Amino acid sequence: MINIKEAYLNTRNRFITLCSSLETEDYSVQPTEFVSPPKWHLAHTTWFFEQFVLKEFSANYAVYNDDFAYLFNSYYNNAGERVLRPNRGLMTRPTVKEVYAYRSYVDAKMTVFLEDTPPKEALEIIELGINHEQQHQELFYYDIKYIFGNQPTFPTLENNIALKDITEKQEFITIEEGVYQIGHDTSGFSFDNELGIHKTYIHKFKISNNLTTNAEYIAFIESGGYTNFNLWHAEGWDHITKNEIAAPLYWHKIKGVWHYYTLDGFKPVEPNKPVTHISMFEAYAYAEWKQMRLPTEFEWEVAAEHLNYGQLWEWTNSAYLPYPNFSKAPGALGEYNGKFMINQHVLRGASIATPENHSRKTYRNFFQPDMRWLFSGIRLAQ
Amino acid sequence: MINIKEAYLNTRNRFITLCSSLETEDYSVQPTEFVSPPKWHLAHTTWFFEQFVLKEFSANYAVYNDDFAYLFNSYYNNAGERVLRPNRGLMTRPTVKEVYAYRSYVDAKMTVFLEDTPPKEALEIIELGINHEQQHQELFYYDIKYIFGNQPTFPTLENNIALKDITEKQEFITIEEGVYQIGHDTSGFSFDNELGIHKTYIHKFKISNNLTTNAEYIAFIESGGYTNFNLWHAEGWDHITKNEIAAPLYWHKIKGVWHYYTLDGFKPVEPNKPVTHISMFEAYAYAEWKQMRLPTEFEWEVAAEHLNYGQLWEWTNSAYLPYPNFSKAPGALGEYNGKFMINQHVLRGASIATPENHSRKTYRNFFQPDMRWLFSGIRLAQ
Amino acid sequence: MINIKEAYLNTRNRFITLCSSLETEDYSVQPTEFVSPPKWHLAHTTWFFEQFVLKEFSANYAVYNDDFAYLFNSYYNNAGERVLRPNRGLMTRPTVKEVYAYRSYVDAKMTVFLEDTPPKEALEIIELGINHEQQHQELFYYDIKYIFGNQPTFPTLENNIALKDITEKQEFITIEEGVYQIGHDTSGFSFDNELGIHKTYIHKFKISNNLTTNAEYIAFIESGGYTNFNLWHAEGWDHITKNEIAAPLYWHKIKGVWHYYTLDGFKPVEPNKPVTHISMFEAYAYAEWKQMRLPTEFEWEVAAEHLNYGQLWEWTNSAYLPYPNFSKAPGALGEYNGKFMINQHVLRGASIATPENHSRKTYRNFFQPDMRWLFSGIRLAQ
Amino acid sequence: MINIKEAYLNTRNRFITLCSSLETEDYSVQPTEFVSPPKWHLAHTTWFFEQFVLKEFSANYAVYNDDFAYLFNSYYNNAGERVLRPNRGLMTRPTVKEVYAYRSYVDAKMTVFLEDTPPKEALEIIELGINHEQQHQELFYYDIKYIFGNQPTFPTLENNIALKDITEKQEFITIEEGVYQIGHDTSGFSFDNELGIHKTYIHKFKISNNLTTNAEYIAFIESGGYTNFNLWHAEGWDHITKNEIAAPLYWHKIKGVWHYYTLDGFKPVEPNKPVTHISMFEAYAYAEWKQMRLPTEFEWEVAAEHLNYGQLWEWTNSAYLPYPNFSKAPGALGEYNGKFMINQHVLRGASIATPENHSRKTYRNFFQPDMRWLFSGIRLAQ
Repeated sequence: MINIKEAYLNTRNRFITLCSSLETEDYSVQPTEFVSPPKWHLAHTTWFFEQFVLKEFSANYAVYNDDFAYLFNSYYNNAGERVLRPNRGLMTRPTVKEVYAYRSYVDAKMTVFLEDTPPKEALEIIELGINHEQQHQELFYYDIKYIFGNQPTFPTLENNIALKDITEKQEFITIEEGVYQIGHDTSGFSFDNELGIHKTYIHKFKISNNLTTNAEYIAFIESGGYTNFNLWHAEGWDHITKNEIAAPLYWHKIKGVWHYYTLDGFKPVEPNKPVTHISMFEAYAYAEWKQMRLPTEFEWEVAAEHLNYGQLWEWTNSAYLPYPNFSKAPGALGEYNGKFMINQHVLRGASIATPENHSRKTYRNFFQPDMRWLFSGIRLAQ
Repeated sequence: MINIKEAYLNTRNRFITLCSSLETEDYSVQPTEFVSPPKWHLAHTTWFFEQFVLKEFSANYAVYNDDFAYLFNSYYNNAGERVLRPNRGLMTRPTVKEVYAYRSYVDAKMTVFLEDTPPKEALEIIELGINHEQQHQELFYYDIKYIFGNQPTFPTLENNIALKDITEKQEFITIEEGVYQIGHDTSGFSFDNELGIHKTYIHKFKISNNLTTNAEYIAFIESGGYTNFNLWHAEGWDHITKNEIAAPLYWHKIKGVWHYYTLDGFKPVEPNKPVTHISMFEAYAYAEWKQMRLPTEFEWEVAAEHLNYGQLWEWTNSAYLPYPNFSKAPGALGEYNGKFMINQHVLRGASIATPENHSRKTYRNFFQPDMRWLFSGIRLAQ
Repeated sequence: MINIKEAYLNTRNRFITLCSSLETEDYSVQPTEFVSPPKWHLAHTTWFFEQFVLKEFSANYAVYNDDFAYLFNSYYNNAGERVLRPNRGLMTRPTVKEVYAYRSYVDAKMTVFLEDTPPKEALEIIELGINHEQQHQELFYYDIKYIFGNQPTFPTLENNIALKDITEKQEFITIEEGVYQIGHDTSGFSFDNELGIHKTYIHKFKISNNLTTNAEYIAFIESGGYTNFNLWHAEGWDHITKNEIAAPLYWHKIKGVWHYYTLDGFKPVEPNKPVTHISMFEAYAYAEWKQMRLPTEFEWEVAAEHLNYGQLWEWTNSAYLPYPNFSKAPGALGEYNGKFMINQHVLRGASIATPENHSRKTYRNFFQPDMRWLFSGIRLAQ
Repeated sequence: MINIKEAYLNTRNRFITLCSSLETEDYSVQPTEFVSPPKWHLAHTTWFFEQFVLKEFSANYAVYNDDFAYLFNSYYNNAGERVLRPNRGLMTRPTVKEVYAYRSYVDAKMTVFLEDTPPKEALEIIELGINHEQQHQELFYYDIKYIFGNQPTFPTLENNIALKDITEKQEFITIEEGVYQIGHDTSGFSFDNELGIHKTYIHKFKISNNLTTNAEYIAFIESGGYTNFNLWHAEGWDHITKNEIAAPLYWHKIKGVWHYYTLDGFKPVEPNKPVTHISMFEAYAYAEWKQMRLPTEFEWEVAAEHLNYGQLWEWTNSAYLPYPNFSKAPGALGEYNGKFMINQHVLRGASIATPENHSRKTYRNFFQPDMRWLFSGIRLAQ
């Protein structure tokens, strides 16, 4: 809770830096339902502070624009009506300039508010808001990559995130059978879905020290991995067949050579980098092909201190479900996590797009198993 | 053919004037498949001159950007690959600024080209290109109205088009039975679909001097017109039921009073203006309710000199089909009209969005019968 | 009007004969929305007489089963609720046996009714009902062919309809320009859409004495007809691309040889038979490829006495629209034709599936331009 | 393994008894993708024995009909091509009579085969085949209820399955914290997904002795349970909104009174019977409303000996995932369970439609969380 004003301003300013090489046009499109326009991210994260902090705790706060609550709410049903997701890309107004003005307005008010002594309850929500904005900064990377990576001209983004080559030899770390503790203790920030330390029985297992590389994944592709239904979940097989998926997202085979789009441009696939933009279905099929499996999220957490992680979110074979004694917050903030606990899989770790200090070994990320636009990767277990 | 350079530049500059009150963000969205983003219109009409004039007739012409032919072709299959219609709104690049630069580049080249003595064949294509751009200027109005009219904030457009009140008393003009001439003679510009003067036998009929007003149309609504299937084509009835259509496009009933969006903003429906943004299905149902009918396109053309037209395109009960001896031009320009001659209906007249001198009494406009975003109207016959 | 009882019973019994080789299972399926199960046809045609004759004109008539009006109504909105078309194949009850019992009951009542002196109004509706049932008998052929032709085992139907070889040399008959009379006079039965003799101006044209053969159509296929977009309507091109259509319905190429399913079984395509099961889109593209065109329905009617027709319904390039002075009957029977007068094309002639004496030269058949399961053919004009 | 011949014949004959009150028409329809026609179940279970037993182990076995392997395979990709699920209801041939003949043929061959001394490997597959057929007998109940329950005439089925009234007072049984054993030991038949005894850490919890009743569920409905998004998973809320779900499947409110369709007919909802035909989404929302939760499958198994179960399959809040050391059989039989381990939830117990002795406390049933046509129920935990 120390330096919350500084943390607030750092996070807020970071988003503006991330967007510095965008053209006005880049802010407003929504190429598919699960992608949000950058303009929307910028406004929505601002609305969060306005709605849950300033309107609640700041006496005489004047709402910037009544329409914005309607336009920039996301999935908080308790906070009122909202623009349906697929229409986010059709709002040409407010303009980008107006959204930046909205950010400035709220930041100024928040700065004043933080210079007083805010109540503890407000501070907790601000901390949540900072973490919320960090999550949207990560989503911004996924979304702008999708926006650029599906245009014929493949625009680029100025960025300082790049995957590192995997240079260590692969080894499998052994973890012994026993009862282990899982979950976040109450010191330091965490989301509600990590809370409630509890015990789990883990059977003996081995886990790879490294993520799977592009070279290894190409071997899977070239050996017919995408055409052998025995490797796939039935639902995964239907999905790749229907959508004609035969390689990771953003990959194109040109004259026999695999290329991919990265935020730095279009280039040949780099063999020693970890493979990314694969779905849970693909991660599972790859593991089947290796005659191994994906770890559970509990195995991952128990092994975490031995792992070299942080490049990519790692698909686990755990469904996203509540921990024993999970309880959600009352009101709109209670909608943050619990209501997504169905038909999603947990990813553990962090990615190059994750803001510094945002993740930890108990962090539970989650997505539907067909999603590929996130920075996802594969770690094998057996 | 006189003053073609002047005609060219007037038309080209007019489009820039139409867009003068737009924000950058407004240029790039495509809210539905049949709407194109303004940026696309600006570039596509430019591409037409580059592709069919400069590349064909101007020695040493350097194409501005090879990608643009791919990006801004519309439906000319013979001119190569094209961006699929529903993706037009997802191209954030080239930017608006770059598209204006492209326009300037082509206009400069065209100006030089027109100062020489262009071959007759080129002049004909330029004339076609001017008319083509005028059509897109009209589509621009439909599209920007759709873009703005479906946003929660209802932005407005600076414009000098407004429907006039209908003040004349309604009367029905009688036309006698006989053989009449239809179609455009070869003097002056026309599209290929109007050509080929030929004879048609017309039976005696009566046609209204006026378009149907909003007040008259409200009477139709309030009497249950949208819930009485006897008034509708079977396909029209399925269409309005499935899409929950119960009023013209852009109409909203607020506390018992009909309002609509116009380019000047959101306001109560003005009773004496002609009703617009109705589909052929709605025009037909209205006529059935009045126990009258819509005229055929031939009746309309024969009566045209007696009519006070030009406010709205008037739905006729004629399918869009070829005239006797219709033949299409070879190559890409042959795709202009003929291939649309199925499942569309003819509209005659002109609208407030039609550029001056663009239409004439033989002009055959055409749309699918469910389309409503055009500036369409109703004229009764019996 | 003479022998109406005999006409009634002949028509009714004919339907039972048509179905004599069906298994119980064949009566109840609906493989696609536009196909109806045979059981439904048998019941619906019976319901027509019960609803519009016996209930209206026969004192003390006891309705067979109140549910049947709901189950076997088709599109007569004025006659009450109806089972939605796509659900017709899911009703396993009433059983086939019960439907035949329903037919017997209604036929017995109708026989008694016809032995008295029915009022003229009833006789007119009975005549319409007989023609209505004949139409459904033709649809039965289309539907059972679709039901059988899409099963892996290709069942057959006992039938005495077979297309004849075309043996005459192709010639083009010339018709001179002038004003001609179109439409049905009031003697003898006709549908409302043929009524109203009126004048049409016809320009000089030529029309083929023969239908297009399978051999000629194979030449079109093999020359790339289905891959040359210049030959197609834009909508037709989209349709064949989206639905991967590259040959007539029921055609399969096996080891380089075209085969097709007929009601007699699966066999090599017979070269001298007229091509059938082609859409209006395909008929148009074929004509474009031959650098000719399809006739209008008016040209066809004027030339009819010179043509050798009756094998297949012939696509014309006329949209299905009302004749001058067309008016529909009041009530449910007024829904018979008029409400379909949009987005459909007229076919003239008759097919091998048409009951004897059901058609005539003024008969206007009509279908959507993408339909192929009817017995359609191609006659060229120029 | 004793009396396997008797077990085989009992199971096979039971299916014929289940169908004894069906009409021929009832065997062939498929009202929705997840329902299979009874004819298909009868043939598919027969094909299983032909494909995996007789063809593999019975020398000189003559396949009954080569087409049947194609027609009646379900999801065994390794066993060759198959009819796509949604087309199962369109095959009118083979007829029901032919399918019964196929059953007789295979049963006769199996009887002879079982009278010899079949190899152990064959006996294991036969035992699997018997359990497989029992599963299809349960599915038959779900499917015929769906087929009948969606027809306007609500046909009935002769049956001796009926839910019992819940008469015991509700109590919550407490289970203490600790390490428990989960899974099936190797004695007696089980499916591969139950195998591999392993340890799980269970925290202290309480579980209801009874299932939720219709009366309790009506209280949930009447208090607005279906309109309060706070009770629902986000995906569940989208699902019920989009599909307009506001009560269990087969429920209809008539003049203020809830009615439902059962295999015995249409009647008022019986308040003391356990509620059924609810999805996992509904079970979850109900538990939220009660401020309790659903048990996990491990809690259920640990508590099983204290529970009074067998009326309805009970939704658990466990995703269907592999046990530690799960491995699937090689070849087609390996497709039985493993490939469905994604996006499905586990149900424990058994239902009135489950054949005797088919289930056990380690049995893992599984369905997608939106499915409602199964005989599902709710048991609360806290």
